Amino acid sequence: MAVIAFSQECKSLGARVADELQARKIMIESKIFPDGESYLRFAAEFPGQDLVVIKSCFPQQDKRLVELLFILDAARELGAKRTIAVVPYLAYARQDKRFRPGEVVSNSSVGRLLGAVGADLLVTVDVHQKESLKNYKTRTVNVSAMPLLAEYLKSMKLSQPYILAPDKGAAAHAQLVASILKTDYTYLEKRRDRITGQIVTDERDLRLDCRDAVILDDIISTGSTIANVARIAERCGARKIVAACTHALLVGEAEVTMKRGGVTDVIGTDTIASSVSRVSVAPAIADSLRQHL
Amino acid sequence: MAVIAFSQECKSLGARVADELQARKIMIESKIFPDGESYLRFAAEFPGQDLVVIKSCFPQQDKRLVELLFILDAARELGAKRTIAVVPYLAYARQDKRFRPGEVVSNSSVGRLLGAVGADLLVTVDVHQKESLKNYKTRTVNVSAMPLLAEYLKSMKLSQPYILAPDKGAAAHAQLVASILKTDYTYLEKRRDRITGQIVTDERDLRLDCRDAVILDDIISTGSTIANVARIAERCGARKIVAACTHALLVGEAEVTMKRGGVTDVIGTDTIASSVSRVSVAPAIADSLRQHL
Repeated sequence: MAVIAFSQECKSLGARVADELQARKIMIESKIFPDGESYLRFAAEFPGQDLVVIKSCFPQQDKRLVELLFILDAARELGAKRTIAVVPYLAYARQDKRFRPGEVVSNSSVGRLLGAVGADLLVTVDVHQKESLKNYKTRTVNVSAMPLLAEYLKSMKLSQPYILAPDKGAAAHAQLVASILKTDYTYLEKRRDRITGQIVTDERDLRLDCRDAVILDDIISTGSTIANVARIAERCGARKIVAACTHALLVGEAEVTMKRGGVTDVIGTDTIASSVSRVSVAPAIADSLRQHL
Repeated sequence: MAVIAFSQECKSLGARVADELQARKIMIESKIFPDGESYLRFAAEFPGQDLVVIKSCFPQQDKRLVELLFILDAARELGAKRTIAVVPYLAYARQDKRFRPGEVVSNSSVGRLLGAVGADLLVTVDVHQKESLKNYKTRTVNVSAMPLLAEYLKSMKLSQPYILAPDKGAAAHAQLVASILKTDYTYLEKRRDRITGQIVTDERDLRLDCRDAVILDDIISTGSTIANVARIAERCGARKIVAACTHALLVGEAEVTMKRGGVTDVIGTDTIASSVSRVSVAPAIADSLRQHL
């Protein structure tokens, strides 16, 4: 069986995955030197064994990404049989196309770098665009947190929940959650206002009287899109308004922004440890590792 | 001739190198998204041309390193003939050996990653340990800033300057500068105190009456080593005490620490842009590019 390695910042999720798999755990000691460089050390050996490194890339995406690459590179040098990167939140997944000439397609560089350090498998959770993983030469598995989020929403005993995707990109997630909750869903249209440059959500007439609204997305970043959708839901008569996502980045004043928009509850997973990590993706990651190792 | 590309934070040094070489400049536009990820874009094309990317890795070593790797990767994709990385301050150069089992040797990973994005040549300045570049598969050139620092020190009209290296590792730099200034030098012994864990410099009897002391090192980080040496120089009767280095990281209260130790002037280069960047390494980098392109 594989050995599961993680550092302090992924300790909770890492330990849960290892427990699910009844696998040996290895801590990766880490500290920051006064000049800002990271120091990393495996606290135990793993000769000839498969090594799973669990490391999420938020916050401080660049530091986490560099650490991940260093750790995978060292794991191979230190005698791991195969190295598996479990990256619950994958940084730079949203920069997967060249929109203007001369742009750097960060996502494909991340793929190349993971390949360079010899990762045999990359497991991630709800990557923003599935197609972006085509940029990767490493074998990849994209795990969905949606069934686990759906189970949590079920336990909330919502009143005839209506699942709202803030844009077309999140529609498949909404459909999946709606099917598990045996309810309906829709998606709204999001566009950039040509004059103000801001993201606006097109108004829609939704029949939400006496119903709870669940706004569902893969990532909540600044919370402004969620707040826009919440305002529409409120105008359409929604009772409770819940925001649920896999990756709760919650940048800056995100929670305040959503609350002002009328959101009553925010639910995230532990792909990023935060105050709203109410759902653990450990069972889904463990399942995926069982299948692919 | 090659095209010289750099982003805002390396604009001054990048432009000087380009001017020395009478080469075309390309700005690399960069911004930070609200979630902390970097956006990068070449503002002009360079089909079939050699592209030199000038980017120093301090402060925020991880962010700068990730950006450097992304830029080099994109440069090749965008049609550069050869890509040359000029990294005046190379991050993680001090972590070049495994001291304890299980340690990550970050320096060799940096080498592997630069190779993965297809850098044809790496030019750096006064890397901490020359041997560390052996970890790199990419062809490397280590440029010395010491002749330029020596010229600056000459212009200061110091009184019989005595060049002091804080440890054996800096002795070769001190020797070179001393030979240019036609003066003498020595190096001190630095060790870690077994009880306090702090770095201490062994006392020495130096005859410094009426002489100026120049403490010379490749890197000034927290300034505490420099301050230790300055105290010894002061006790030995030194008049002025100047600290000179290639890479002035000046972490935290470094300038205050050195001043308290008796340092009167701090001189650094523009490998890292700071308030003490009094010497430009542009001529040395341009010379190296002329030779190796």
